[in-house]
Amino acid sequence: METNRVEAFSDGVLAIAITIMVLELKVPDAPDLHGVLEVLPTLLTYVLSFIYVGIYWTNHHHLMHLTKRVDGGALWANLNLLFWLSLVPFTTRWMDESSLSTLPVLIYGLNLLGSAIAYSILQARLIRLQGADSTLARAIQNDAKGKWSLAIYVVGCAGAFLSVWIAVAAYVAVAAIWIVPDRRIERAVASQADED
Amino acid sequence: METNRVEAFSDGVLAIAITIMVLELKVPDAPDLHGVLEVLPTLLTYVLSFIYVGIYWTNHHHLMHLTKRVDGGALWANLNLLFWLSLVPFTTRWMDESSLSTLPVLIYGLNLLGSAIAYSILQARLIRLQGADSTLARAIQNDAKGKWSLAIYVVGCAGAFLSVWIAVAAYVAVAAIWIVPDRRIERAVASQADED
Amino acid sequence: METNRVEAFSDGVLAIAITIMVLELKVPDAPDLHGVLEVLPTLLTYVLSFIYVGIYWTNHHHLMHLTKRVDGGALWANLNLLFWLSLVPFTTRWMDESSLSTLPVLIYGLNLLGSAIAYSILQARLIRLQGADSTLARAIQNDAKGKWSLAIYVVGCAGAFLSVWIAVAAYVAVAAIWIVPDRRIERAVASQADED
Amino acid sequence: METNRVEAFSDGVLAIAITIMVLELKVPDAPDLHGVLEVLPTLLTYVLSFIYVGIYWTNHHHLMHLTKRVDGGALWANLNLLFWLSLVPFTTRWMDESSLSTLPVLIYGLNLLGSAIAYSILQARLIRLQGADSTLARAIQNDAKGKWSLAIYVVGCAGAFLSVWIAVAAYVAVAAIWIVPDRRIERAVASQADED
Repeated sequence: METNRVEAFSDGVLAIAITIMVLELKVPDAPDLHGVLEVLPTLLTYVLSFIYVGIYWTNHHHLMHLTKRVDGGALWANLNLLFWLSLVPFTTRWMDESSLSTLPVLIYGLNLLGSAIAYSILQARLIRLQGADSTLARAIQNDAKGKWSLAIYVVGCAGAFLSVWIAVAAYVAVAAIWIVPDRRIERAVASQADED
Repeated sequence: METNRVEAFSDGVLAIAITIMVLELKVPDAPDLHGVLEVLPTLLTYVLSFIYVGIYWTNHHHLMHLTKRVDGGALWANLNLLFWLSLVPFTTRWMDESSLSTLPVLIYGLNLLGSAIAYSILQARLIRLQGADSTLARAIQNDAKGKWSLAIYVVGCAGAFLSVWIAVAAYVAVAAIWIVPDRRIERAVASQADED
Repeated sequence: METNRVEAFSDGVLAIAITIMVLELKVPDAPDLHGVLEVLPTLLTYVLSFIYVGIYWTNHHHLMHLTKRVDGGALWANLNLLFWLSLVPFTTRWMDESSLSTLPVLIYGLNLLGSAIAYSILQARLIRLQGADSTLARAIQNDAKGKWSLAIYVVGCAGAFLSVWIAVAAYVAVAAIWIVPDRRIERAVASQADED
Repeated sequence: METNRVEAFSDGVLAIAITIMVLELKVPDAPDLHGVLEVLPTLLTYVLSFIYVGIYWTNHHHLMHLTKRVDGGALWANLNLLFWLSLVPFTTRWMDESSLSTLPVLIYGLNLLGSAIAYSILQARLIRLQGADSTLARAIQNDAKGKWSLAIYVVGCAGAFLSVWIAVAAYVAVAAIWIVPDRRIERAVASQADED
């Protein structure tokens, strides 16, 4: 099976997840600076979630680019990832509406952690399918960045019980290390293009 | 006519149907464990409907993969399927908001049954179009799995009048037998690829 | 310019328009037959609008299939059509929430009329671009069906002042004559395929 | 990396942004002319935002058409543009619900300005990637239209403090100069097609 329809469906779900968060943005009561200040925290959490979905889309784009074939298991690994990412608008809203209470901040982190684990599972499945000496396998290698992310999420979630700002800092930190596009894959894509 | 735009439109509708259910998830009033328990049943029904739409997307993906050409009748058979699936977020919400009352649970089942019948109609139409000795016709054969699903839905809907849990068990059972990807088609795809 | 991205964007807008109408479906208060009867008229208007968007998608699909190239004017003619169709969920909701009052029923008809005119403009533009002896021009010819639709809409809108049921009958009638896929184009597609 | 998936994802986000604004349209209380007059200003702001998203889609379509390859930086420049455009439904709603108060009108203008700057960044990045003597670079040249737009937005935003109508006039003016499709690129596409 080819990957183009998996990409199209994933693009659809991610495009919706990234856009419907705007529907959550409530128009402030007063059309003045007070209203702007009221909407600002919501806007910032929206920006964070937008960046996260953007990171997943970018990485998914890279991952699929090096994938030649998928099977039924990979389709479900992909649906599992989409499930976790489709929850992001909900956990974002809860975190925001609770004004960063401990539990919703923790749940947002668990949502990010679940997404990261789902991504790892999909990645492992695709690497197995393409073979150990495929361009994809060589591009990902030991995936240090992915493992670091999981570790930082766990620390952040645990830290939420001390202060929600530890958790928020952890979520921002992981976004920061991923916003740089995955050089390993870009290099692999470039070297593969050279071979062709 | 080729199938790519039918796939793109179907992907769009299914991606929206699967994602807007998150908009239904209401943020609990209290940011504590009580709130989590409050949101849990809703989340479980969301998971069930997500899996159902995922199953239909996966099967639709397989079905279209073996389809070379469509006609006007197939387009409408496909729109009929999309209609039933687009109702899933609504019947899911009703079932959940009624706390699993008999009638909404029954209606959810009728929605699933309608979707399954619509899928059978689309499948029959596509098999007729491709011909009796096509890869698609050989892959589907007598479609025992599809017939079993219809039977279990009917039993589940009837059972809803005794206990909603009979119905829920039936809906979960059908999801379980379909979550395993359609081996018949995967084998057919593989054998076709070998022939090419 | 090629048509594939115009198709993708149109598919996206139409998929959303056809699906978000479900968000309008309000869960009835009572989980009993009374609730079902309450939701039934809304469901019927939803079905009508679903069929209309489905008709436009099917016809758009056929139209683009015979279109080799588009220009900036065609892009805007297409956006104009999408604009009218994106209003359908709104006018459907208004018509339904007013329990079929005269003015909302009239406005729904004007929305359908506007969509039909926008479609004619797009079609005329595409025929001009492909040339008078193109497969598209020969397939559409004098477009009697399109002209009849406009006439029936006008009669229906005027009739709304006497009785909303005249208008509703007109809207259903036009849907009925279009739900049959456009044989002219199917034949043209088939004959073109034979030539190739 | 190729551009097709960037286009598909952008089409998805823009299709959603352009369509969900209809969800904001509130059904008027009274089903009479009073209700129509009530909904009319909202409809007009919706039309303006629809045209703006349509302009961006058209220009994005042209831009990507002349783009052969993208890199990670271009993906993020594109996501940045989508972010600004995804805010349009929110700022449109705020401007409308405040009945054109100064601050929301200003914020709508800043949203348009941010989108325009994001588009310029994406365009500059893509030109750099394709090379100075690429068709794209020659098609865009000094981008007078883009620079004029930025200037008019700034004047409009400043003018909002005197009268919101200055701002609204500026927003309409920029839309008017862009609604004409980008001849430079159309000419470049045509000349490139001639060369091929």
